[in-house]
Amino acid sequence: MTDRQPTVPPSSELLGVMDAYWRAANYLAVGQIYLLNNPLLKEPLRREHVKPRLLGHWGTSPGLNLLYVHLNRVIKAHDLNVLFITGPGHGGPSLVANAYLEGTYSEVYPHVSPDEAGLGRLFKQFSFPGGIPSHVAPETPGSIHEGGELGYALSHAFGAAFDNPDLIVAAVVGDGEAETGPLATSWHSNKFLNPVTDGAVLPILHLNGYKIASPTILARIPKDELRKLFEGYGYKPYFVEGHEPEKVHRELAAVMDEAIGDIHEIWSDARTKGHQGRPTWPMIVLRTPKGWTCPAEIDSKKCEDYWRSHQVPMGDMDKAGHVAILEQWMRSYRPNELFDAAGRLVPELTELAPKGDRRMSASPHANGGQLLKDLQLPDYRTYAVEVTSPGGTTAEATRVMGQFLRDVMRLNLPSQNFRLFSPDENNSNRWQDVLEVTNRAWMAERYDTDDHLAPDGRVMEMLSEHQCQGWLEGYLLTGRHGFFSCYEAFIQIIDSMFNQHAKWLKVCGHIPWRRPIASLNYLLSSHVWRQDHNGFSHQDPGFLNHVVNKKAAVIRMYLPPDANTLLSITDHCLRSRNYVNVVVAGKQMAPQWLTIAEADAHCAAGLGVWDWASNDNGGDPDVVMACCGDVPTLEILAAVDLIRQHLPELKVRVVNVVDLMKLQPPEEHPHGLPDEEFDALFTTDRQIVFAFHGFPSLIHQLTYRRTNHKNLHVRGFKSEGTTTTPFDMVVLNDMDRFHLVKDVIDRVPGLAARAGHVRRLMDDRRAEHKRYIAEHGEDMPETGGWAWPGRVIAPPVSTVDTSSPDNTQGYRTTGAVIPCRTCNM
Amino acid sequence: MTDRQPTVPPSSELLGVMDAYWRAANYLAVGQIYLLNNPLLKEPLRREHVKPRLLGHWGTSPGLNLLYVHLNRVIKAHDLNVLFITGPGHGGPSLVANAYLEGTYSEVYPHVSPDEAGLGRLFKQFSFPGGIPSHVAPETPGSIHEGGELGYALSHAFGAAFDNPDLIVAAVVGDGEAETGPLATSWHSNKFLNPVTDGAVLPILHLNGYKIASPTILARIPKDELRKLFEGYGYKPYFVEGHEPEKVHRELAAVMDEAIGDIHEIWSDARTKGHQGRPTWPMIVLRTPKGWTCPAEIDSKKCEDYWRSHQVPMGDMDKAGHVAILEQWMRSYRPNELFDAAGRLVPELTELAPKGDRRMSASPHANGGQLLKDLQLPDYRTYAVEVTSPGGTTAEATRVMGQFLRDVMRLNLPSQNFRLFSPDENNSNRWQDVLEVTNRAWMAERYDTDDHLAPDGRVMEMLSEHQCQGWLEGYLLTGRHGFFSCYEAFIQIIDSMFNQHAKWLKVCGHIPWRRPIASLNYLLSSHVWRQDHNGFSHQDPGFLNHVVNKKAAVIRMYLPPDANTLLSITDHCLRSRNYVNVVVAGKQMAPQWLTIAEADAHCAAGLGVWDWASNDNGGDPDVVMACCGDVPTLEILAAVDLIRQHLPELKVRVVNVVDLMKLQPPEEHPHGLPDEEFDALFTTDRQIVFAFHGFPSLIHQLTYRRTNHKNLHVRGFKSEGTTTTPFDMVVLNDMDRFHLVKDVIDRVPGLAARAGHVRRLMDDRRAEHKRYIAEHGEDMPETGGWAWPGRVIAPPVSTVDTSSPDNTQGYRTTGAVIPCRTCNM
Repeated sequence: MTDRQPTVPPSSELLGVMDAYWRAANYLAVGQIYLLNNPLLKEPLRREHVKPRLLGHWGTSPGLNLLYVHLNRVIKAHDLNVLFITGPGHGGPSLVANAYLEGTYSEVYPHVSPDEAGLGRLFKQFSFPGGIPSHVAPETPGSIHEGGELGYALSHAFGAAFDNPDLIVAAVVGDGEAETGPLATSWHSNKFLNPVTDGAVLPILHLNGYKIASPTILARIPKDELRKLFEGYGYKPYFVEGHEPEKVHRELAAVMDEAIGDIHEIWSDARTKGHQGRPTWPMIVLRTPKGWTCPAEIDSKKCEDYWRSHQVPMGDMDKAGHVAILEQWMRSYRPNELFDAAGRLVPELTELAPKGDRRMSASPHANGGQLLKDLQLPDYRTYAVEVTSPGGTTAEATRVMGQFLRDVMRLNLPSQNFRLFSPDENNSNRWQDVLEVTNRAWMAERYDTDDHLAPDGRVMEMLSEHQCQGWLEGYLLTGRHGFFSCYEAFIQIIDSMFNQHAKWLKVCGHIPWRRPIASLNYLLSSHVWRQDHNGFSHQDPGFLNHVVNKKAAVIRMYLPPDANTLLSITDHCLRSRNYVNVVVAGKQMAPQWLTIAEADAHCAAGLGVWDWASNDNGGDPDVVMACCGDVPTLEILAAVDLIRQHLPELKVRVVNVVDLMKLQPPEEHPHGLPDEEFDALFTTDRQIVFAFHGFPSLIHQLTYRRTNHKNLHVRGFKSEGTTTTPFDMVVLNDMDRFHLVKDVIDRVPGLAARAGHVRRLMDDRRAEHKRYIAEHGEDMPETGGWAWPGRVIAPPVSTVDTSSPDNTQGYRTTGAVIPCRTCNM
Repeated sequence: MTDRQPTVPPSSELLGVMDAYWRAANYLAVGQIYLLNNPLLKEPLRREHVKPRLLGHWGTSPGLNLLYVHLNRVIKAHDLNVLFITGPGHGGPSLVANAYLEGTYSEVYPHVSPDEAGLGRLFKQFSFPGGIPSHVAPETPGSIHEGGELGYALSHAFGAAFDNPDLIVAAVVGDGEAETGPLATSWHSNKFLNPVTDGAVLPILHLNGYKIASPTILARIPKDELRKLFEGYGYKPYFVEGHEPEKVHRELAAVMDEAIGDIHEIWSDARTKGHQGRPTWPMIVLRTPKGWTCPAEIDSKKCEDYWRSHQVPMGDMDKAGHVAILEQWMRSYRPNELFDAAGRLVPELTELAPKGDRRMSASPHANGGQLLKDLQLPDYRTYAVEVTSPGGTTAEATRVMGQFLRDVMRLNLPSQNFRLFSPDENNSNRWQDVLEVTNRAWMAERYDTDDHLAPDGRVMEMLSEHQCQGWLEGYLLTGRHGFFSCYEAFIQIIDSMFNQHAKWLKVCGHIPWRRPIASLNYLLSSHVWRQDHNGFSHQDPGFLNHVVNKKAAVIRMYLPPDANTLLSITDHCLRSRNYVNVVVAGKQMAPQWLTIAEADAHCAAGLGVWDWASNDNGGDPDVVMACCGDVPTLEILAAVDLIRQHLPELKVRVVNVVDLMKLQPPEEHPHGLPDEEFDALFTTDRQIVFAFHGFPSLIHQLTYRRTNHKNLHVRGFKSEGTTTTPFDMVVLNDMDRFHLVKDVIDRVPGLAARAGHVRRLMDDRRAEHKRYIAEHGEDMPETGGWAWPGRVIAPPVSTVDTSSPDNTQGYRTTGAVIPCRTCNM
């Protein structure tokens, strides 16, 4: 290792000033929770100075404040670039207090000024109607992370550290959060952090001993076990324990210097001598009392160093003596030494905080849009599959997407701002071509036989959807780009993480100083209809239903029917900002329907008539056959083929939907198709047979207000699955071509009477299919080998005029990022 | 520690027979993946003997087979009661093979007989249409766990071990699964296992080194780190490593004996000497090659001991030479030594397996319904809140539920078959009274100041929803009862686990030998409308939408409006079988509406008119005001009160919905109300203003086929949340009483013209509310302190006749478990 410069420990005087700064932060934290008035305690505290409803969390706040001031010291001492991740995000009072103390808060919210009036507003606004949330939240400068739902502090921290070689991410992990699954595996992120080109994460496990009402596990195992656990995770743990401030200040300062020294040494070694294997990064275990510095007991009940200090240590302020206890508690911080008569922090303390962007609350990494650069994108059209006639070509859609992503990766290697994420499914989902230009990130042991593993790999694979999602969120929130590839069924593992990210984006949309970030992009492949290996446990399209409930302003869902539409959509997703884009596409060899030009026009419209598959000649159809998703599109077209053979007089219109949100009314979603356009496509009175990738209820949910909803019949996933053949899977769910033809016969008025023989034929074919697969184990050639007959009867035209810019509704296929009418993106 | 009996190591001869048994299981695993015919290789293998589509997973199978035969030996040697948990559940061929070898398979599926014909069927059926899934699945005897979605092997194992003092749960954890978050935290379950009254879990980490396409983390860290990691988790790890079968057999046998010896010693010590602190339970780390015994290379590409052996090592059987490679591979197991000419396992090997219930594939714990005993339930009516007039009493609904659960706990202490599960929210959700009769389970360190922690506690609290869910699933699947209390927003953390459990139940419903198990019961409290402390991150009712997509046969959702309805529902849930019951109820002090008798009748009907709140006198209302959920019910009643004051001539009917699935048509859900009854309640042509707990879209999704859907206007959660006052939360989402009155005015024909002044008044009240809370921080007395005026105008009667047993539809309030017309429960 490199010779390390000896660090000069902070003087007693400096530690004294730090303690004063800590007291100031603690004072502000208590003040936010309790006070409505009298912020400097200039007059004796009275009941009416105290808020009527007391909300917020005190317990974690003094620990966060302690860490903040100690990080401030090392930032100044070593001129560090530090991002603070607040695992215990409910400690909102602490992070707000610190942002205020170092001036950032007043800069972004000038009415919360650095004086007595501002202090009064700071206190009143906290967890108050019209004010700010009680948690660290999008409103909090310096935060990328709410922490309301626990478990993601470390994966966010590592996501932030990737490709930020001079950044130290100080990640506080509460001992409650440490019990969650996602957090427990995220310690292993150190097997993916490259000391040459990535920054560092300094995890700080804060053992304050208690959750809401119980002790925490890690606070109740022997120290030797705890040490082994973190050594086993691959860290070098430093322990600081105590309840006397002076001792803790001294020891924590020393440990901070050690840890920062370790990080610099690791960086320096790796950057001067090349990779020496996986480094043993430092971490800190800080054991201090929960609710430290609040009254030891209140009403003869233990409060400090106990779970009772978790939220508001003393809730009933009408009780005799409680106002006096609060006053005594607040005065114990000696506010008159901390703030001058005007309510300004005294200069000695102001001096202690870092300046400008070095302030953790002002870190540009915590407002990633400030740092965001557009991706360099090759022309996706050059990756197009040649389609000379609809269905005349076959391809694996996601493999084609992977070729495009390979070159996106290549073009952006100099910028180091694009990564792909997957729970060991990158190749399974057919993105293996990206490994031509990069590798899988891997800092653990390597063997000669290994396949594309390297410390500087940009494909992030760990068998944890939580970890992939958390890393990607951290990466995006700090101003970079990415794409998550996942098996469709298992993306629901991160339902709740998606909820929180979508909420974060929604709230950021109302905060002017939050700059737009790159969208969170999902490819869901290995989808419900093609889980031949794995069966029912892997068959679930429910993520679409989950996503649709979030704010329309931030969610987009695309189901491209083939490779060229997928390319067009992918390009769009990579250019968009502040969305969650969900793309569902199959990886299996499948027929291709549209040329790239047709695909562009179709994706720009979001949905439209496929005239080449229709025979209503733009006129009045007997039935609309709609489809959304690759397998449903195949089955609808195969059904149309059967109808042409057996019911040639029937006028069929085929409508394909790529952009699911087009189905919703425009009042509900910015992509929503106006009613008159919807009616033009789906008619106002004809039967609609709709084959859908997901649960049928979702189509009804999106369209129930449409004129012709009464005639809409949806086939989709009915939760009937097993390991079986591809065609049998659609049969099990009554979404197969034979059943779709029966649906048409049953629904179109008058048809049942004259098409009984066709209906019986369809039943026969279904029965024959069952017999065949039971014997052969694979689909009969008639179904598995079906091909569109190539009856191209007209050039593809959409009934939605895609030449008008007004109809591109949120969809652009070329050019830089420019505002769009409906998306504002 | 107790003196341990020295264990006699198995003889070389026995190890040889075990190796033969292992070869037999491996042969059957390969045969299932590949063969359509010629199961004993009596003739030279030809292409047509091989399945046309090859599906399944070989890589993990030889390791599972190895562990199975070694467990069989110790079961016989020590007369053990062992349950096998297959973390790598995609290794279906292995578990099916072993169930077949020990006879269980043919017992439950007689056509898969122990002879050549049966062997042929065993091979053909695997992952074949009409056959069995490729994973360990409900169809697999001996399994409680599909393992298709990874992460839950250990939490299921511990759930199974709780309260089964003589059971050893051998839980195989794949090194892929070990990367997931839920698995990473589930090692900490050892802090909750009581050696006196619980069984043991023997975790076996199988390091075969690779996932689908990459190495695993735990296989690529130094052994010393790995050892520390598991010592840090609190285990005593035994390591077995190798690729020579003989050496591995010998070492694994020795390690198995050691581990079993440790378990017996721990049990014996704790049971004779009392609690000695948390024991250090053994675990095994087995490092053997992935796909062990398959060809080392195929087509010059590394296969054995590499990720290429993960699924089917050689997929293209039309390629020259591949059939010969397969034949050579299969013959390497020397099937002629293992099976006689009739296809029966040779007696020497048959002897090796345990007998009867000692066979892991025949463990009654793996078919928990066999062991299930009804809970002893006190009469829930005795816990009722006295309600002399609607709204005349206030109570905290979940606290009352907790009093009932306390006595359920007390009554069933002798049976040791009931536990409560919560991520540190038991008390927050107001179930603290259960701590009067039991404690929180806790085997980690305890302090004098601790609150209700004990080794034998039956309240399971760890800050991991995954762990709570996994433990509870394991507990239920092995024949016991439980209830999960969770914050509503964070139950979505286990969306995907719920999916898998619901799928398991759905499939079990079609397997005659699978006996019904107790339902999975959720209380979702601290719900979307009352997150005053925590704000937007904690506000999400999406779990209801998630659940509704699963098979109607297994899902039930209840939103009781008050404590007495909650009591009645709770009693029902605890008696039911094979469902997932979701109960949403608030914990805050709130008005109580129904007496216990009224609550019973109302819950039995599932929904009904509240005549005391209506003034249509059973006739023809001007508007139907419907509500579902406690806060929506309050707002609807407050709106009715406003209407009575300001629009007394308006005829209002109030309908309350407890059982959400009543809204669906009976074709969709067994609880669904027939159309004529629905129309009688909601009318066919009057306006309906519906206040709902969740997303409004869910009500539309359930009711879009109903006659009067066109007049249905739903208010619910619109994803507008923040930290605010309770009443402001409903205002933010336009579900407040003032807005509901405006809705009525806007919707009822002709009313707008004459009620403009009332509409303006409502706007004024909303504006005044905003002004008030911005100043005072709490709701104005008019809203926060509102009480139903007590104008009881008629005895409560429902328009659904609840006296008829036919109308109890799935709901019983008393008596033992008896079949019900619609639920079959």
